[in-house]
Formats: sequence, C-alpha cells, structure tokens
Amino acid sequence: MIILGIDPGIAITGYGVLEQKGNRFKPIEYGVIRSGKEMDTAERLRLVHMGIAEIIEKFQPEHMAIEQLFFSKNVKTALTVGHARGVVMLTACLKGMTISEYTPLQVKQAVVGYGRADKKQVQYMVKSILNLDKIPKPDDAADALAIAICHGNSFNSLLQAY
Amino acid sequence: MIILGIDPGIAITGYGVLEQKGNRFKPIEYGVIRSGKEMDTAERLRLVHMGIAEIIEKFQPEHMAIEQLFFSKNVKTALTVGHARGVVMLTACLKGMTISEYTPLQVKQAVVGYGRADKKQVQYMVKSILNLDKIPKPDDAADALAIAICHGNSFNSLLQAY
Repeated sequence: MIILGIDPGIAITGYGVLEQKGNRFKPIEYGVIRSGKEMDTAERLRLVHMGIAEIIEKFQPEHMAIEQLFFSKNVKTALTVGHARGVVMLTACLKGMTISEYTPLQVKQAVVGYGRADKKQVQYMVKSILNLDKIPKPDDAADALAIAICHGNSFNSLLQAY
Repeated sequence: MIILGIDPGIAITGYGVLEQKGNRFKPIEYGVIRSGKEMDTAERLRLVHMGIAEIIEKFQPEHMAIEQLFFSKNVKTALTVGHARGVVMLTACLKGMTISEYTPLQVKQAVVGYGRADKKQVQYMVKSILNLDKIPKPDDAADALAIAICHGNSFNSLLQAY
C-alpha cells in the first residue's frame, strides 16, 4: 500500500510518500512544495495543486493522510491554511484517492506512542521508523511523513481487529 | 466584460454572472452550489470545483471577484470557508481568469455608497442596479452579485482615472 502524507500550507506544503508492507514502512520520497510571498494567492494555490498532482501521478498512492485541524494561532492563519488544505483535498479527490484525517494527538500517539510528545520526539521516531540516516528536513516534510506513518498504523490496527 | 462574483462556502457557494457595458450591468445568471452535510469534505469541495468550472465554461467570464475575509466567527469557520475559497480561487486560476478581492466594506461602499450598510440595503440595491423583479434568493446569490457589481464599479473607476 502506498500512502501520501501531507502537511498543507500556502507558503510551504510538506509531502511524504511511503510504501507499507505489513508492519514495515519504506520511504519512497519526501520534500516540500514552496511558493513565494510575492505571488498571488491563486497562483500559489495553483503551485500546490500542480505539485501534489505530479506526486500522485508519479507514485500512484492509494491513500492520502492529512492533519485534522481545529485549532490555529488565529483566524487569519486558519483561513490561509484552509485555502491550501482545501486545494490538497480537492486534488486527491479528483485523482480518486481516499482521504483520511488525523488529529495531532492521533499522529503523536501513532508515531511516538505518547499523545503529548513534542516535535523533536516525533521527528526522531520518523527517522527511526523509516531507517533514515538523519531527521528529514524541513520540518514540514517530517510532519508529512509522520502523518503517513499514522495512517499506516491505523490501517494495520483496523486489519488486526478483524 | 463578463464578471463572475462568488460568495464561497462549503455547504453553499453563491455565484452571480453579470455583463457590464459602461455603467450598466445586465444579470446573466445567478444561483448557488449546495452540498450535503453527510458528504465528505473532499467530495463537497469537488462539487464546488465542478460547479464553478461549469459556470466558467458556460459563460466565459474574464474576471472573478471574491470577498476578502480577515474576520470570521471563529477559527473552525475560517478553516472551513478557507477550504471552499481556496478551491474557488484555484478553479478560476486554472481557467486563466484574473481574480480580484474586495473587503466587505468595499462591496458595501460600491453597491450602496455607504460602508456600514446592512445586508438588506445591499440586497435591495442589487435588485435595483440589476433591474430585477425581486431580491435574488438565497442571500449567498445576492452577495455574489454584489461582489460582481463592486468589481465592475471599481473597474469603471479605474478607467475613468485615466
């Protein structure tokens, strides 16, 4: 099963593509899509859309996992993240993917086994679970991989429940 | 010049298509795109995208006008409206349209001539400016027409300034 994890944002959208076989994860690709402040919002959203569409075409993931956000620093941030998040979800939907949403608590629980883990602990566990030489950079890419791992683990738990 | 005004939302997105000739506006079409609460967010966003894309293909507007939002009831509402707004902007951008954003103050100023006008006054002026028999319903459609009028008037002012 190939999973695409996404950490959406207007300036920087992190992505992580994993292959899951049973309890093991193999990192396929990770990175970020960036856009400049000087660009129009619509043009920035087009870059996010085109970038995600290209990743989906290249790696053919079946599932997208994305963070479920209820809180944000403020209303303006929520609106801006909402723009990017909506575009990412639309892109996956147009490609026929299933989309799963996880709260930050669920991601921490799945990756570290502890819902109050800090960012560094999550990043360290991402590196360890994926057998990487170092912690993925930037943070947005590591966060996207964490969400993808969370989805894989939740999926495994579901299978084990049957 | 054909203008498409949009009042975006996840449950209901209002649209209004106008033709502007000099100082006159001719309403071409207006209405709303709805989606049900029982649907996934991604599927609702797909409906907004497909609906707007269909309107753009049918009426070939050159410009999209959309409200610029900085305030919202709360963070959750901002995130949800952000999803729909991002999808609407992406759709217009992919169709090669220009996109203009106006604050609620600018819309009221342009339509009523008074920045603190209430919703009813705006709706009444939309009816009057467009020579309609009655106030367009639902409110989201009337709001979309008001934004389109605002864009037309701003564009006229720009032309007169030269």
